[in-house]
Amino acid sequence: MLKDLEKTLHTQIPMTKLMRLQVESLDKKELITTMPLDVNINDKGSAFGGSSNALTIISGWAVCILLSKEMGLGDTMIAIIKNQSSFRAPITKDLICHTYLPSEEQISKMKEKILSKKSITLKLKSEVIQDSKICLDFEGMYIIKLK
Amino acid sequence: MLKDLEKTLHTQIPMTKLMRLQVESLDKKELITTMPLDVNINDKGSAFGGSSNALTIISGWAVCILLSKEMGLGDTMIAIIKNQSSFRAPITKDLICHTYLPSEEQISKMKEKILSKKSITLKLKSEVIQDSKICLDFEGMYIIKLK
Repeated sequence: MLKDLEKTLHTQIPMTKLMRLQVESLDKKELITTMPLDVNINDKGSAFGGSSNALTIISGWAVCILLSKEMGLGDTMIAIIKNQSSFRAPITKDLICHTYLPSEEQISKMKEKILSKKSITLKLKSEVIQDSKICLDFEGMYIIKLK
Repeated sequence: MLKDLEKTLHTQIPMTKLMRLQVESLDKKELITTMPLDVNINDKGSAFGGSSNALTIISGWAVCILLSKEMGLGDTMIAIIKNQSSFRAPITKDLICHTYLPSEEQISKMKEKILSKKSITLKLKSEVIQDSKICLDFEGMYIIKLK
């Protein structure tokens, strides 16, 4: 399933393929996505802020897709509305992004709401972590609309 | 000078070349940068949020480089510290980004400060505008350090 999601992202959003985004793993707690440093490098030999921010943006979006499937929503439109990011430390290795999932209880409430209102907004948090240190701290607000 | 800056960006930050970033124009008020929609497209046929955010991030960074040159600072380290973005409307054409420059007076104060403190932070605003409508509203905080 995760490799299907990766393929969908690479096909529908070509920049994710050029950035060599990989969807690594998913459990009840988090989705892990990665990008290699080499193509995403900057003038200082660390990760380009535009690439690391794109990794968090697309990872939140991917979580919205996974949640929509879990909720059995069928065809949806998912988009980012706003975000804020803090670049706390340079990323000097391949990028590993942790995007945290809502709890079962929150997902259940979201499902109720979207079935009655036809759309919901949700806030998701991602962190790019290197050697146990949070290098990029991201919060994104997304919309999921039923089609 | 602008084409030199574009070449530097493409060489030092390969993702800007893959996104086909162009440095279009500069005056006392703003720097204009662009990216074509085609390579930066998403599943909805509009611009991928990761690409449009990367465009604003790198454009603010480019303004810091231009300001450093104008202030005659010599060798500097420039990095983004944090940012916030609002995606107000889908971008359905090639992306045109306006990054607003500080006033002459603000630049003069910045120069005094960096020469005494060795580093400054500055807040820059960028907007991706399509048909007179602000589609992406971005504010980034950058640091410029003397080396």
